[in-house]
Parts: sequence; C-alpha cells; structure tokens
Amino acid sequence: MYRTHTCGELRLEQAGRQVTLAGWIQTVRKLHKTVTFVDLRDRYGVTQLLFGESLVIQLEEQPLGREFVIQVTGTVTERTSKNPNMPTGDIEITVSNFSILNAAKTPPFTIQDDTDGGDELRMKYRYLDLRRNLVKQNLELRYRVNRSVRNFLDTRGFMDIETPFLIKSTPEGARDFVVPSRMNPNEFYALPQSPQTFKQLLMVSGYDRYYQVVKCFRDEDLRADRQPEFTQIDCEMSFVEQEDILNTFEDMVKHVFKEIKGITFNEAFPRMTWEHAMEFYGNDKPDIRFEMKLVNLTDTVQNQGFKVFDDAELVIAICAKGCSEYTRKQLDELTDWVKRPQIGMSGLIHLKYNTDGTLKSSVDKFFDETKLKGWAEKCNAQPGDLILVLAGREERTRKAMSELRLEMGERLGFRNKNEFKPLWVIDFPLFEYAEEEKRWVARHHPFTSPKPDQVALMDEPSRYGEIKANAYDIVLNGTEIGGGSIRIFQRELQEKMFAALGMSPEEARHKFGFLLGAFEYGAPPHGGIAFGFDRLCSLLGGSESIRDFIAFPKNNSGRDVMLDAPSDIDQSQLDELKIGLIK
Amino acid sequence: MYRTHTCGELRLEQAGRQVTLAGWIQTVRKLHKTVTFVDLRDRYGVTQLLFGESLVIQLEEQPLGREFVIQVTGTVTERTSKNPNMPTGDIEITVSNFSILNAAKTPPFTIQDDTDGGDELRMKYRYLDLRRNLVKQNLELRYRVNRSVRNFLDTRGFMDIETPFLIKSTPEGARDFVVPSRMNPNEFYALPQSPQTFKQLLMVSGYDRYYQVVKCFRDEDLRADRQPEFTQIDCEMSFVEQEDILNTFEDMVKHVFKEIKGITFNEAFPRMTWEHAMEFYGNDKPDIRFEMKLVNLTDTVQNQGFKVFDDAELVIAICAKGCSEYTRKQLDELTDWVKRPQIGMSGLIHLKYNTDGTLKSSVDKFFDETKLKGWAEKCNAQPGDLILVLAGREERTRKAMSELRLEMGERLGFRNKNEFKPLWVIDFPLFEYAEEEKRWVARHHPFTSPKPDQVALMDEPSRYGEIKANAYDIVLNGTEIGGGSIRIFQRELQEKMFAALGMSPEEARHKFGFLLGAFEYGAPPHGGIAFGFDRLCSLLGGSESIRDFIAFPKNNSGRDVMLDAPSDIDQSQLDELKIGLIK
Repeated sequence: MYRTHTCGELRLEQAGRQVTLAGWIQTVRKLHKTVTFVDLRDRYGVTQLLFGESLVIQLEEQPLGREFVIQVTGTVTERTSKNPNMPTGDIEITVSNFSILNAAKTPPFTIQDDTDGGDELRMKYRYLDLRRNLVKQNLELRYRVNRSVRNFLDTRGFMDIETPFLIKSTPEGARDFVVPSRMNPNEFYALPQSPQTFKQLLMVSGYDRYYQVVKCFRDEDLRADRQPEFTQIDCEMSFVEQEDILNTFEDMVKHVFKEIKGITFNEAFPRMTWEHAMEFYGNDKPDIRFEMKLVNLTDTVQNQGFKVFDDAELVIAICAKGCSEYTRKQLDELTDWVKRPQIGMSGLIHLKYNTDGTLKSSVDKFFDETKLKGWAEKCNAQPGDLILVLAGREERTRKAMSELRLEMGERLGFRNKNEFKPLWVIDFPLFEYAEEEKRWVARHHPFTSPKPDQVALMDEPSRYGEIKANAYDIVLNGTEIGGGSIRIFQRELQEKMFAALGMSPEEARHKFGFLLGAFEYGAPPHGGIAFGFDRLCSLLGGSESIRDFIAFPKNNSGRDVMLDAPSDIDQSQLDELKIGLIK
Repeated sequence: MYRTHTCGELRLEQAGRQVTLAGWIQTVRKLHKTVTFVDLRDRYGVTQLLFGESLVIQLEEQPLGREFVIQVTGTVTERTSKNPNMPTGDIEITVSNFSILNAAKTPPFTIQDDTDGGDELRMKYRYLDLRRNLVKQNLELRYRVNRSVRNFLDTRGFMDIETPFLIKSTPEGARDFVVPSRMNPNEFYALPQSPQTFKQLLMVSGYDRYYQVVKCFRDEDLRADRQPEFTQIDCEMSFVEQEDILNTFEDMVKHVFKEIKGITFNEAFPRMTWEHAMEFYGNDKPDIRFEMKLVNLTDTVQNQGFKVFDDAELVIAICAKGCSEYTRKQLDELTDWVKRPQIGMSGLIHLKYNTDGTLKSSVDKFFDETKLKGWAEKCNAQPGDLILVLAGREERTRKAMSELRLEMGERLGFRNKNEFKPLWVIDFPLFEYAEEEKRWVARHHPFTSPKPDQVALMDEPSRYGEIKANAYDIVLNGTEIGGGSIRIFQRELQEKMFAALGMSPEEARHKFGFLLGAFEYGAPPHGGIAFGFDRLCSLLGGSESIRDFIAFPKNNSGRDVMLDAPSDIDQSQLDELKIGLIK
C-alpha cells in the first residue's frame, strides 16, 4: 500500500491522523532554511505538505523538484493560513518522512492550464499534456458522458453488442482503411467506417434495440478537427417509425444534458425541414441560438439596372440588428472577410437603416430611397439595423451568407457556448447529384429509406432529385451531433437503391450480398441513429476542438507524433503479407 | 408505432385489452378451416395468436409462413388451455386484423436450440443463427457481464479512457496486423495487440485508475477457438503493489459471479505459485475442481533395471480414485489417447491397487510387489485406485500428464461446468528461454517488473532463469481468464529489460522511445491486469467455445464467411496506398 489517502481527500476532521500520501510535486516553496512547502498532486486533488527542521538534511541530500513522484508519511495538521479555494485547504501534512519514488526531468513545458507549450510539443509529450487540469477535466467529462449515455440506453432496453473491426471493404463514400491478411495472402480486411450493416443484421436477427460506443475509421484527407479514427454512439431499433426514434434520442440528449450540465429542456426540440434550414440559414445545421435569418432579395432587386444583381443567380441578405453605426473600417473588414478564398465572394453590399430613419447604402447610385426601403421591409429591418447583401452563383452565395451570418452572430455575442439550442433537421433529400462523377449519390447512405409515399419515384430516375428521405440530423449550436434514418428493409427496394447509385446487380451482390440475403429471411422495419461522440463531448465541454477530448489524438496529417506512427515496417513483415511498396 | 406491447409482455391482467404486436412467426398451426394458431416471437418472448373465421379469406390470399414478419391487432383473451411453460401462456391474442410486413424464404436451417444447420452454414447465415435462443442468451449474458464489470469498476473509481487503434508496429511476441496509410505512403499503422503502453502512459499522466473494454488484434495462426480480433477488459492502477491488484480484481470477479450467476465466494481465492502449479498440475492454469495431483516418481523408480524409466528425464504419476476396476479395453483406450500426436507419448504404464489389497501392474516383470507398494504409497493410493504413469522427456511428459489428468477428471465427472473454482497463480518466471531464437524472451511482456529483491539479477545474464516476476494470472476451471503484472516504471530498469531481450539501445529507442521518455518525467509505481472477455463470458455461460459468445465471429482461417472477408480490393485502392501484391 503506497498510500492511505489520496491527495484530494483529507479535511480538518482528520487532523491529528497519521497518513501516507503519494503523488506528483506540483510546486516546491522553500520558505526559509527549516521550512519547505510542497504541493502534492494526484488525480483527486492537491494537498500541501510541510517539510520541517527534521528533514533539512535529507532534503539537501535528496532535493525535490517539479513532477517528482514521492511518498510521504506525516500528520494531518490544521493550517495557520487556510486556502478556501482548495478542498483540502484547511489542512496540511506535517511530514515525518518521505521517499522519492521516481525523479523527474524538467518538463519541456509547464503543466498548467495556461501552458507555454506549443501544439506539436504538447502532442509529442502527450503524456505530460494529459497531466494538465484542463485536459484531465475533458477526459473526465468524456467518461461521464459515456456512462450517462450507457445508463440511459440500458434503462431503455438497448443491448450493447460488439460488431467486428476486421470486415470487408465496400468503398462507397469515404475511403476504407484496409488491412492485409497474412493467412489469406493478397486479400484485405477493411476497418469499419461505421457498423451500419452489422446493426441492421442485428435487427434482422431480432435484437430489437442495439447500441455500441464504438471506434470507426475513415481514410480521408483530414480537415482541421477530423480524426482518422473517431468514436460513435451507434444505435438501432426495430419496429419503429421516425417519430419513435426522434422521441427516444431526444430523451437521451435531454438525459445527458441534465446529468452532465444540470440543464433541463422543458420543451420538445424544434424540428425543421431540410428545405427550411437551407432557405433561412443557408445550411443543414442551423445555429438557432440567434435569428438573423437569410432573406432572399433576388426578385426584389433584379432588373433595375445593377449588373451585379442582374447577373446573379441569388441575391441574399441578413439584417444585423443595431449595427447601423458600423464604421467604414468595420464594413471594409467584413468585405475582406467575404473575399477570403474560403468564402470566395467578390464583394459585400450594405444598407444602413440609420436611427434617424434615413437609409444609406453602398449602392445608392443604383437604387433610390423607395427601393431601399423595400429591401428594409423585406428584411424586417428597423431603424438602427444594418443589412448585408451578397450576390452571385446560387450555391456559393447561400453558403457564403450562411458563413457571414455565423460570423456576425459571433461578433454580436450571440454564440454563447454555455447556451445550448438543439434541434432536429428532417426530410433530407434521398439523393444528391455528384457533378464530377455525373451520377446520383446517397445523401445519407445507401440504406436510407425514401419517404413511404415517394417509393414509386424510385422508378423514375428523372425525379430522383425530388425524393425525400426518412432521414434526420440532430444539430446543436450549428454543429451536427448525430444523424440517422429509417432503413430500407426490403430486398427489392434495396436493389433499386443500389441501381440508382450506379451499381450493377453483380457489384451490389458482391459487396452487399449478405444484406440483400438477410432481407429475404424476415427483416423487420427498423431505423437508427449515430452520434459523433468526440464532437458531442467537445460541445458539452464548451470547446471547438475534438482533439482536446481524445486521450491520444492524431495530427492533421494523421500522424501520432508521440509514437511516431505510422512508420516503416520490417521487410520480413511485408514478405509475410505478400505485399511490396511502390516508391 | 408498430406495436403497443412486445411479445413477452402480456398477461391475464391485460385480458380484454386491444393491442398491437409485431414480430416473427415461430410456428403456424392450422387447427381446422376456421382456426389458425400462430406463435409470434420477438426478443422479449413468444405470444400465441388466434386467427379466426373473419380472417380465413385474407389468410388464403396472404398465407403466413415461418419467419415472416407480421403486425397484428387484436384482443387479449384468456386461453382455454394454458401453457405454464410460457410467461405469456395464460393468454392469446384474438386477431382482428393483420398485415405482413415482410415475407421470408424458408430458412436454410431450423431456428431452434437443436438446429439441423452445420457450422459453416450457420456462419454463412449468421444473422439467422443469431435468432436462435441459445445464441441470443449468450449475447445477452455477454452484455450483462459487460455491464456488471463496468458498474464495479465505475464504483471503484476506474475511468474508461479510449486508447487509439491506429498505432505503431512494435513486433515482439505475436504478429501485428498492419494498416497502410494513404496520407503517409509506404508507412504503416499497426492495430494494437493490447493497449499496454497506452495504459502505462495514462498512469504516468496521473489518471490513477483506468479501464477499457476494448478490441485487440493478433495476426496469429488460429488454433481452435482463437480469434484474430478479441476483447479485453483492460485495467491499470497507480501506487499499487501486487496485493492491491489481486484484492481489487478478486472483488471484481466475485461481484460478477454474484450478479450473473448468483454465486457467492465467501473465501479468498487460493493463491498458488507458478512452481507449485507446474509441479503438481503440470501446467500454469490448474483446474482445481479436483485433486489428482501429479506425483514425481523419478527417484522412486529409476535404476531398477526398467529401461523406459531409466532413460526418462521424468517419471510421473497420477492416482485415479476408484478406478482399479478399469478393463483392459479402457486401459488400451487411455494408452491410445496418450499416443495421439497432440499428446505424443509412446506408452502408458498402469498400476491397479485392487480392492483386495493386491497390486497389478503393466510392468510387473520389472518391479516386485514391495516396489509397487512404494509407488502406491508415494501416490497416496488406497485399495480401489488406479495409478497411471508416464515417462520420457521432462517437458513433454509433464505436459502429457497434465492433459491426462484433465482427461481423467473429465471421465470421472470432476469437471462440472456449473462448479467454479478460481485461483491466482503468482510468481511467474520473468524470462523464458526461446530455444529456436537462442535468446531470452519475456514470459509475460517486456514491461513486467522483476521481484524487487531480484532486480540485481538483471545484471547477471547467467541467472535470468532464476528471476521471478511480480506477475499473476487468474485461472478459472483450468482456463486463464486474466493476467497481469506490476510494471517497470524506471527508465534504467526498462532499458536493462530491453537489452536482456536482445534489443539494441537504438532499437529500444525506435520502438519504445516514447515510453522510456515518459519514465523520465515522473512515472508512478503501477500495475494492472487484462481479462479475456470472450473467454470469461464463455466460462460463465458454461460453453467451451468463445465463438458462441461473439456476434460475428471469424472461422479458423480468420475468414468471415458471411461477409466473405478478407477479399480482393480494387487496383485503384492499391495504387492510392502505393502497395503492390506479390503473387
């Protein structure tokens, strides 16, 4: 037994008790020759140690330093100057003897919330970064969310069932990681992008309610804040309609918020169709912590002699409340902002609705006061507001305005990370046309069911674009935290879907024969959802970055810089696997 | 809503209620023209349905068959002939209308406990095999064990922390599965054989108590009942000695047995040194449900003119109580048994201690009655017992006798799968000499600590064989269900260990530099254990096979015959990964 108590445990009640503690040295403060104070840290807290006169010689022989691991025995003593900010702040340990369990070099960065270590350095020494309170709290939060989710699902009759990691490569959408097989040379397993087909098979097998907190893998180019391996809360239910799933998982999210954040949602989460979201927020994951909806001005402003508008597919506006006093500098800055390559617009038009009722626009030359008044009315603007207008190709302009709305929301302080506004986005299109590939692709995935009353359209390729899916996303503060669908459960419809995606019957059978087969032996109606667990945790923790919520994350090149992985492997390994490298 | 109740839910109290059920047809029994009984099944149970006169025409148009998925609405009615063996046996549903949600082809084997489907067929149609009650109960058991373990560890302050799956290949012991990286061409990740180094880093980071129920991977030739991917309950603790770990995880096993099997262990689990286990049971995972210990007769029988004994390194015996009446046929059969290639002995010698006190042996020619009496005494035999003796090379003979002991235990009914006898085996050797490689290898793994008082021997290669480790296994009914060790936590000792295993300092730094580095920044004393979750479940479920407790297992060639994985991948995938196949 290395300790009788942890460093977060002792209180005044234990005064006089002889105890043994073990932990890391947070700080050493030598007050004068015969008094040294040490803050001893472990996962549970910090306790102050007092090394007095009897230990002066030992301390000279065995000097203590930051991050040393030590064991001390001593007496719990009431402090003369208490520290109300520390749970153990009423006491200290008067040390009678100590031993150094392990010395420590000076860490390459300070182990503090506000560390001096850069990103790469902290990743290389992740085991030290993980000591920082901030990171520790994140991983503790993740653990508590995991537990809260499991408890909820257990109570609702969901069964945790493990699905395999070494599966079959079925490229469709993102790229698979593949794994060569020594026992089956020249053949490869794939790592799952999700347990999708397995959870559906479990429904066919009658398991009724399944869940798993499970690693998934995608060999995609990593944009900021994507990881090649990520964790899903993966769920599936049988004999359900969309309504049943929305209700069940809305309850789950409410349960987690209650347990983790102490936040109660009394109202049902709003539900918004995909079309509504696209029209009024410009994207399918609206941040509804604030209004500032997109207003389509195309019809209002075209054919009045202003070429920029007349040539545009879309002219769209937002109304920033109370911003009519924006300076030229601020407006120029916003213009630069929309011109950045990520946004890609050529300019920004503004209209100030001054508090005195006058109107002032960057396009006064082309539009008279009445016309401008018309814009203001269309935008529901009041004196004191600022209207921002973008014009151009439809898709890009909508997307740009959606980004500008978020940017303005940010600047106006509407995006408070302690305010949580979840909603369901529903009625997604079933298909999406992929211009490069000149074919329809599945918006969600090929197992998603069309709306029951639109199944007939599956026979009319010219109308694929009209078909809506029984698919839904749950969106929190502008981020998708989960998504799912009611699945196809009939072989014939599944075959039509594969065909619509350009798969030949042979290809469909080769890749998904097991699923098509399963649908012939009594498949129940079913549907499910998967939550991005890393993302959910980062939102609950009030952070932008999922990396802060992963114990050992990879960098933007998919590398683990601590391990130095991926790395070369021995020629003998390659030989056994019967693969060669192409330089 | 497809149903108001499940098929396991309705009782007499609900009689008269209008309900809707959905599920699979287990059986259809047409009693006469106007009365058809259907047993409807779901995960929760079976309910009897009565289709009466009003549905005759619909049933003719839409005939029902086994494994069809249907939805029925009707009234809960008291049965005239109740079935006390079914929880719903007091009622039936008088169906008013029904619809077929999905038809089913006739399954390729019967969905029953006692199925007519062979192994390969059931693996191919695993989604149908999973419908069988037996398999469902196994997966439910697995789920409950998982939950029970998590609850225990949660209560004891262990944190579930996810470790990465895409790590670095560090071949040592079993072979790694490797994963080529598209973003880092010609480099490979490896899939973890266990999260060993990560959990140690978490201890260095101060997480104090860690656990994970986690998939691990080994690209090994699959003996019967090994899987390339398997699940571990992986745990680690800081500031502990061996005693703390044994106590904690003994409590965990007791907790699981109490919750899952209703079995209480009042006594502490026995502890047996590795040396004792090898001497008296012939292996390091003794089945202590029965005695029949191995008796070393070498000194007793050698140099008395019987060449077989005189040439042997080891002569060893067991005493089978009450077996003196074994017939010649039975003894011949046992002789054939030890001659099988798996056992590899050239013969079996027996000595009957007849109930009348006389002795009768297959080697009467060489040993007189006094000598034989001496054997019997040495073996603690009583009249009525049978002594079985093997002689030969030490290692093989001991192993063979260990197997023969288990075989005799089996034949005598001592290996009752409902009796559970766990124990700890401790004090394993730190090293083992690998004859083929002509070097020392780690008995457990290279991170295992030698006994504190034997650390000095790490500087004397000639004495490596003497060093014992702070390593321990937990053994249940002759199967290792978990094992672990106190770890090395000092860089210097870890470097000595790598050197002892024949690793150059460069190789050690290349493979494990991150761990050696971590040990320099304040590593606490720590240790842990990992349980084989698949195996634990199979033992709790009373089965020999772990495959029955895995939802989608692989066969002995590492193939998933349902998915047909591993499989070819597209040339374009290979090109992207910059690897070629060697035919």
